[in-house]
Amino acid sequence: MVILGIDPGVATVGFGAIRAEGGSQTMLRCGVISTPADMRLAARLKQIYDDLLQLIDMFKPDVIAIEELFFNTNLKTGISVAHGRGAILLAGETRGIPMYEYTPLQVKQAVAGYGRADKKQVMEMVRRLLRLEQAASPDDASDALAIAICHARFAGSILYQHNGEATCSTI
Amino acid sequence: MVILGIDPGVATVGFGAIRAEGGSQTMLRCGVISTPADMRLAARLKQIYDDLLQLIDMFKPDVIAIEELFFNTNLKTGISVAHGRGAILLAGETRGIPMYEYTPLQVKQAVAGYGRADKKQVMEMVRRLLRLEQAASPDDASDALAIAICHARFAGSILYQHNGEATCSTI
Repeated sequence: MVILGIDPGVATVGFGAIRAEGGSQTMLRCGVISTPADMRLAARLKQIYDDLLQLIDMFKPDVIAIEELFFNTNLKTGISVAHGRGAILLAGETRGIPMYEYTPLQVKQAVAGYGRADKKQVMEMVRRLLRLEQAASPDDASDALAIAICHARFAGSILYQHNGEATCSTI
Repeated sequence: MVILGIDPGVATVGFGAIRAEGGSQTMLRCGVISTPADMRLAARLKQIYDDLLQLIDMFKPDVIAIEELFFNTNLKTGISVAHGRGAILLAGETRGIPMYEYTPLQVKQAVAGYGRADKKQVMEMVRRLLRLEQAASPDDASDALAIAICHARFAGSILYQHNGEATCSTI
């Protein structure tokens, strides 16, 4: 199963494609879609949408896993990320790819084993799980890989049917 | 000039197409795009995107005017609206239509003459300016017409170049 993990945003969208087989995960590719700050918002969204369609056509993922929006701090950032997330969901839906969302807590638990893991610990666990020589960079690419790994672990384990309920949400 | 006004959202997107000529405005059509609450978010965004492309192809607007996001209350609603707004901007950008955004304050000032006008007063002014027998309904359609009228008045008046600065923002 190929999983495309997405760390949503407008300035930077992280992506990480992995292959998940028999409980282990291999990285196919990771990177970021960057849009210039001086570009109009609508044009940035269009670039994200077009680039994501290309990534989908390249990796032909069975599933897209995307981080759920969660904020308690910067409303302005949140609104901006939500615009970007709209463009991302639209690209996935246009290609008919099933999409699942996970909270940052779920991602940390799935990758590092506990929800309070810090950013560096999560990056190091992503490196180990994918048997990479160096941590994936930039951070957003590593975050996207973490989200993809989270889906692989949730979808392939009893966690998915914990108490008879799916613990990940379709969007 | 044909202006397509948009009141963004996910459950309901208001639209109002007007023709603006020589300082007066005529309604072409108004209405709403509604998406069912039990539909997945990604599917709702796709429906909004597809419907908006159809509206653009139908009215061939020279300009799209859309309400700027503004909230100080419900964060959850704001995030949801921003997702929808992403899909709307993407549709406009896909068809290469110039887009402008206005704050609720700008819309009220342009339509009712002062920024503290209440919802009913704005609806009544929209009705009068467009010479409609009854107020446009539902509310979101009337709001979309107000945004379109706002652009017509800003773009056609010195307000647009007030102090040498455009008072409306391209997106």
